[in-house]
Amino acid sequence: MANNKPENIRLSDDGTAVVIIDQTLLPKETKFLELSNPAELHEAIKMLRVRGAPAIGIFAAYALYVIALNLDANDYNTFLTELRKQSDYLDSARPTAVNLSKQLQRMMKLVEDSSQLPLSHIRDAMGAEASKIQQEDIDMCLSISEYGLSLIENGNGVLTHCNAGPLATSMYGTGLGPILLANERGINLHAYVCETRPLLQGARLTSYELSRAGVACTLICDNMTSIVMKEGKIDAVFVGCDRVALNGDTANKIGTSGVAILAKYYGIPFYVCCPSSTIDPNCETGADITIELRDPNEIKELYFKDPIAPDEVPCYNPSFDVTDHSLITAIITETGINWLN
Amino acid sequence: MANNKPENIRLSDDGTAVVIIDQTLLPKETKFLELSNPAELHEAIKMLRVRGAPAIGIFAAYALYVIALNLDANDYNTFLTELRKQSDYLDSARPTAVNLSKQLQRMMKLVEDSSQLPLSHIRDAMGAEASKIQQEDIDMCLSISEYGLSLIENGNGVLTHCNAGPLATSMYGTGLGPILLANERGINLHAYVCETRPLLQGARLTSYELSRAGVACTLICDNMTSIVMKEGKIDAVFVGCDRVALNGDTANKIGTSGVAILAKYYGIPFYVCCPSSTIDPNCETGADITIELRDPNEIKELYFKDPIAPDEVPCYNPSFDVTDHSLITAIITETGINWLN
Repeated sequence: MANNKPENIRLSDDGTAVVIIDQTLLPKETKFLELSNPAELHEAIKMLRVRGAPAIGIFAAYALYVIALNLDANDYNTFLTELRKQSDYLDSARPTAVNLSKQLQRMMKLVEDSSQLPLSHIRDAMGAEASKIQQEDIDMCLSISEYGLSLIENGNGVLTHCNAGPLATSMYGTGLGPILLANERGINLHAYVCETRPLLQGARLTSYELSRAGVACTLICDNMTSIVMKEGKIDAVFVGCDRVALNGDTANKIGTSGVAILAKYYGIPFYVCCPSSTIDPNCETGADITIELRDPNEIKELYFKDPIAPDEVPCYNPSFDVTDHSLITAIITETGINWLN
Repeated sequence: MANNKPENIRLSDDGTAVVIIDQTLLPKETKFLELSNPAELHEAIKMLRVRGAPAIGIFAAYALYVIALNLDANDYNTFLTELRKQSDYLDSARPTAVNLSKQLQRMMKLVEDSSQLPLSHIRDAMGAEASKIQQEDIDMCLSISEYGLSLIENGNGVLTHCNAGPLATSMYGTGLGPILLANERGINLHAYVCETRPLLQGARLTSYELSRAGVACTLICDNMTSIVMKEGKIDAVFVGCDRVALNGDTANKIGTSGVAILAKYYGIPFYVCCPSSTIDPNCETGADITIELRDPNEIKELYFKDPIAPDEVPCYNPSFDVTDHSLITAIITETGINWLN
């Protein structure tokens, strides 16, 4: 990282607002938003202006701190009651990522444990706690990246889905961390990036982050994952994740399970990178994880009228692929059903 | 089929041009093009105004006939030489589908075998041959659909990728044929349609054809195939194809091989529907099939500014999916690499 300060989530200079890059406008525009009122903060999570499970957690902690600063309360009980409401409101913005709830609970626990302190002290402590949550995340991502790096060899091709880079965390990222760290250390690799429909986080964010960091990368449509694996271009898959159940089942951006099945079929290792806090002790298996259903119009309407990836990012665009006969149950022609398997 | 005449490819009323629906404008606009000059006819194939392997073959046969009508030649040898050039020119528009070459060769064979006939008779015979090619395709599609129908049960969920319906053929289609025929016969089914990036033939064409025919259908992004299969929504996959090798390896729209691997993983039958003419005796295996590489900007620029599917088509839009622990090689956290498999 050229810059050692996270730029995607921070407090404003006067400390009363949370500043984020509006990720919905990338890669066309790098626009910073200063948010301080609860409705704006909630909307930023819901509309994916800030996204990525760790980033949402960090953002929510700062958001609750900023809300606490502006809260009209003179006594502890009113403060606690109001803050709980606001915490629940932020928490309701998205259901799947565990980090949102977890960091809000951590912030609320601090408030609950501070009933004897003056409100001004509680507010200061909340600011310090949010900052600590962010620094812990940075340290964790670096550690994850180091472990992931040990699985990458010079000349490897790696594939990633969605965005688990600095924008989704604070620095390095989870799934993208090993790739960015490898590049920093002078290890040659080539990253294949799934565009990640419907909202195109891979095209818009991951290819932007990789190309800005100088990593050789190629953008593909999600349905091209099988062909690049078959062609021997991929030595490992690295993805982030939103929630891990106790048995290891992992929730991540739609399409991840398909990538994992393809990786298994082609004998390619599939690595999930995440802070250990992503493991949810309340989930026995993946069946306990709530899957968010979003607006159908995200599929039907292509919101991104501008090019969806930076100019300099190359794309691989094969129009067909070959399905091996071992995968075909039957070929049906006008002469009958020809059973293959 | 309410209408028993194919509408997507036909001769103009005066018989001197080929009339097609411009498939690049669907579903927003149903625009018919009348094409007669070679450059326009070539462009219509190349730019996917007419697409689908059988449809391209039928179109090319009519196109060569129309070109023959306008050919400035008074003797057989000039006629043959010029027509060969035009046939090669049409053939060069797209490399993967076998039907294009095959039907052009069939038309040229007829011309080559007619050296003793007056040019006007040869032209008439070419028109009759093109019409025969289309009728044979209609008969074949109906036969394929009947065989496919025998594999569908009332209440089934079926999934299809890309477009192998009436627009890709002349009537019924190949991959879509069993679904459309089932619907005609009062069999209840629900079709899941992969949008098929980058050019969205599933969203724009298949969901349009199914919804127009009254088939219950749901549009999904390509990367949602795994989740709908996992959720038990899919009992069978039906796709068309562009070329089949002698060992059964099958070339079809990019992403098809991934759907097949997912189907195998979830134990769902995967059926390929095609005229027997799609089997290419010159291809031993899929490795012999040339895969067309297309313009990278098809991925980067979202050409379709308007909604990509008809208003009435529902979408399923889960934001995450769960990857089973059996598919994950390792989970990498800040505390180390946890090997799962």
